[in-house]
Amino acid sequence: MTSVKSTNITWHKPLVTQPDRDERNGYKGVVLWFTGLPSSGKSTLAHQLERSLFDRGCNAYVLDGDNIRHRLNKDLSFSPEDRQENIRRIGEVANLFADAGIIVMAAFISPYLEDREQARALNDPGRFFEVYCKCSLETCEERDPKGLYKRARKGEVNAFTGISAPYEEPENPEITVETDKQSLYECVSEILVFLEEQGVIPASL
Amino acid sequence: MTSVKSTNITWHKPLVTQPDRDERNGYKGVVLWFTGLPSSGKSTLAHQLERSLFDRGCNAYVLDGDNIRHRLNKDLSFSPEDRQENIRRIGEVANLFADAGIIVMAAFISPYLEDREQARALNDPGRFFEVYCKCSLETCEERDPKGLYKRARKGEVNAFTGISAPYEEPENPEITVETDKQSLYECVSEILVFLEEQGVIPASL
Repeated sequence: MTSVKSTNITWHKPLVTQPDRDERNGYKGVVLWFTGLPSSGKSTLAHQLERSLFDRGCNAYVLDGDNIRHRLNKDLSFSPEDRQENIRRIGEVANLFADAGIIVMAAFISPYLEDREQARALNDPGRFFEVYCKCSLETCEERDPKGLYKRARKGEVNAFTGISAPYEEPENPEITVETDKQSLYECVSEILVFLEEQGVIPASL
Repeated sequence: MTSVKSTNITWHKPLVTQPDRDERNGYKGVVLWFTGLPSSGKSTLAHQLERSLFDRGCNAYVLDGDNIRHRLNKDLSFSPEDRQENIRRIGEVANLFADAGIIVMAAFISPYLEDREQARALNDPGRFFEVYCKCSLETCEERDPKGLYKRARKGEVNAFTGISAPYEEPENPEITVETDKQSLYECVSEILVFLEEQGVIPASL
């Protein structure tokens, strides 16, 4: 990890705290960290869950390749160091969103255990939940909506997770969904029930 | 500006849009970009405004040195390039917060016109407002709560804005508050009235 280079900074006490926000909102600001192989359904699931949470009155927001890799992290490649920095920054941004009272979903391959644990460590206990989007490599390759697996098999894409770069499975994810066995609706429901049980969102009527 | 290094990304259509969020919230997700000399009152004002907006039922959130320089941007120094990258990332994060429906306040010296214009350019018209915290150098130096001006005058702090590094005044800020002439309460009120007039927040009862 990088050390802090700016030493001329002191901390302010906020006048609105995370518990203040939680109390008024009626749900908790938390991070849902989706991880899984390319085409395992992370982003699709996160966006569907965002909609379901919005329909239940919660402010939820998805961070994914669409709004991060093209923008905040557009200076980063897919090298191991840049992947690490990518996840480090996303972890920090996710923590800010949760602090602001939002149910934030980070949907990135995030192939390395250690990087995910560092993202977790930024948050207080009960504020970070790892969601493993489990899907066989075969099914991911069959889906391949962007033709990336095909290109990776031909050697046209460097360091492609699952083919030419490692994916480290979560050891103790809070939630596992099997996107090659469960429907999108089932996966969303499973996560909503989990969030209710954890007291993150109120039980549905 | 850096070019996009990750080309393996396609865009998803979000299932919840910024207008969806605005409509339900009853206020607009926008960026308030505070700029001014060190000790000009940016962070104090932003935190007070965050509280006032929260008390009026809005979700508001401050990005400042406390949660950004120590965390997301802890790898950056105060060199000109790193200052630029600092502001670039903050601009992107602020844009994400506004997209999520939040009234986000960025409170950083942000001394360069061009960097601030780039932060503005990330947002649709009417979603970004520059707040110039105008304060004479003399008053800032008198305040000097962290003793930084004193150290800068002794040459102990490199590239200190206002002393040994430039500050480029805003040319057309949407809001100017004079923190050496107006009270904190007056500054907050001025910004709230502006936000009402712009239709960002509903008029107070």
